[in-house]
Amino acid sequence: MTVQWCPMTRETLFYLGPEGTFTHQAAMEAAAQLADETAGKTGFDLVPLPDVPAIMEAVRSGRGLGVIAWENNVEGYVVPNLDALIDAGDVAGLARVRVDVAFDAFTRRGDDPFAARDAAGTVSDADSGVIPVSAHPHGLAQCKRFIVDHHLTPTPASSNAAACRDLEPGGVALGPRICGELYGLDTLAARVQDFAGAHTDFLVLGRRDDVRASNDRARARDTDFETIITFIPLVTGPGVVANVLDILRDAGLNMTSFMSRPIKGDDGTYSFIDTLDAAPWEPRFRDVLATLAAHGIWLKTLAVYPRRERSNPPVEAWRLPQGGVHLDATRISDDWRETETTRRELLW
Amino acid sequence: MTVQWCPMTRETLFYLGPEGTFTHQAAMEAAAQLADETAGKTGFDLVPLPDVPAIMEAVRSGRGLGVIAWENNVEGYVVPNLDALIDAGDVAGLARVRVDVAFDAFTRRGDDPFAARDAAGTVSDADSGVIPVSAHPHGLAQCKRFIVDHHLTPTPASSNAAACRDLEPGGVALGPRICGELYGLDTLAARVQDFAGAHTDFLVLGRRDDVRASNDRARARDTDFETIITFIPLVTGPGVVANVLDILRDAGLNMTSFMSRPIKGDDGTYSFIDTLDAAPWEPRFRDVLATLAAHGIWLKTLAVYPRRERSNPPVEAWRLPQGGVHLDATRISDDWRETETTRRELLW
Repeated sequence: MTVQWCPMTRETLFYLGPEGTFTHQAAMEAAAQLADETAGKTGFDLVPLPDVPAIMEAVRSGRGLGVIAWENNVEGYVVPNLDALIDAGDVAGLARVRVDVAFDAFTRRGDDPFAARDAAGTVSDADSGVIPVSAHPHGLAQCKRFIVDHHLTPTPASSNAAACRDLEPGGVALGPRICGELYGLDTLAARVQDFAGAHTDFLVLGRRDDVRASNDRARARDTDFETIITFIPLVTGPGVVANVLDILRDAGLNMTSFMSRPIKGDDGTYSFIDTLDAAPWEPRFRDVLATLAAHGIWLKTLAVYPRRERSNPPVEAWRLPQGGVHLDATRISDDWRETETTRRELLW
Repeated sequence: MTVQWCPMTRETLFYLGPEGTFTHQAAMEAAAQLADETAGKTGFDLVPLPDVPAIMEAVRSGRGLGVIAWENNVEGYVVPNLDALIDAGDVAGLARVRVDVAFDAFTRRGDDPFAARDAAGTVSDADSGVIPVSAHPHGLAQCKRFIVDHHLTPTPASSNAAACRDLEPGGVALGPRICGELYGLDTLAARVQDFAGAHTDFLVLGRRDDVRASNDRARARDTDFETIITFIPLVTGPGVVANVLDILRDAGLNMTSFMSRPIKGDDGTYSFIDTLDAAPWEPRFRDVLATLAAHGIWLKTLAVYPRRERSNPPVEAWRLPQGGVHLDATRISDDWRETETTRRELLW
């Protein structure tokens, strides 16, 4: 009888520590997703690092892949990470992973911080009922309602993961779901954040050869792709961006995100970051990039990853902001420019 | 003899508390700047509020002006504040104020936390030398070098201002310069942040009638203006943004910042925020806005304020990121598309 031996390579995946951060949760999901895509032939060892520059350097020097936070639907882009990726020597994104920003409330195993308070009979008996709740100040701010409803006393920590790791008996900590198992805590209540819809997208980073190899595997599975590019026109004045976007439009390339950003934060300098629904090796995309480069525009591809399922609500369902001017094309009268509403909303 | 009486109106200026935040410092600078512009005829009472929604509501209901953080050169836009202003009923920006993100290190008046350690003779005698340093986790992260150099033990606080207010003897707090006077502290060292170039821009908000009145006064002084607009095309697909920017280009309007943003954070919906070097009442700008509105595009002016002095480095002096593709127009060879550098940097 022959035992068949299935080779499995192991790779390191670096994330922002300590254990139990949302980035750790993203790393766990990325490891599962990438293992699926290689039919389980790659296993990942997850390793925490103290900051994003250390993750970028670990990836650049070939020690493994890395995970960094990229964009949150409430807070927007994680701009320092964006700047770091733009300026990285040989690092690019190869996958994009979404994590719900959901907080669970934890207690020490077997501990009931509310027991003393319940015995005292009333919450207003303050001294016998002080229960500290610990999290990063952002975490405390995102779980205000739970803290008020349970009459907890906020105690800031350096991170949500640290709050869970260092939780003292008699206290409550708020953190990502994975902290419960990681630190052996009881879950007092799940998903206690005020706002249920928040999520953060993370990028999985590799060396550019890793990105090409990963995308070659995905292409073999007939995958659609998204691409993030940065360009710097190296001229200023009206129309610089319009001229570039005309070229993208004429190639039929669809943008899903676009922003200007001072290069490395330097005032008065301009780079542009553009997320597109296409792969850079498609002929129409190649031609666009070649045209831009031939015009002397500085160019870099930051990430190419399999296209995500995205919500795509019809424009009739968009929740418009309050106020503003919105003309109904069938009912435009000539005097709309001079109405008080128009003057107030446009400030002209 | 007649004593001439100079009337001075007093107005309230709301900011994000507690006292001693960077927003408080911005409010003090805004109050000075606006008083200058009204030749001292307006004095301001500065009032802290617990969060930005409370500031927006205080302004909307006519209780005074407000100050909110808008953009930081390292962290980018303060997106929740941007979203709040886009969705505000009758609130817009009338001034833009810049504050350096600089931290001073404070001790309690007359206190020397280092005395015990100095007596022990050596820093490595750890137990006799533990000196806590308190700040918001962001503040602690921004002053890492000072903390390491002085062998301090980081202790997170809910805000830098709270760290200064609640400073215990034997400890050090990090916060904005104004905390020293506000809380009666000694300044141990000034400007201890790792990165010297960080700054945050704040917007001063008023009701739209306040904005128009303020801008009318500025126009009388022959001021140049900047304008921030939001538009929502209510169609999707390639070229939507390019078509709008073509109209701005053809009017000769110069953009200094541009970004897409999901409306209220809703995935798959698109608004655009654009900062322009012009006033919305200029005929060319009015014509642009009227053209966009006539195309059914939702429009709102978020802020109009006197143009700031801005650094404007020549493109030759821009610090380009590492890597990327940048062709010298005089030396393009036909095979640049197929070089290993091009393939690696563009991932095609």
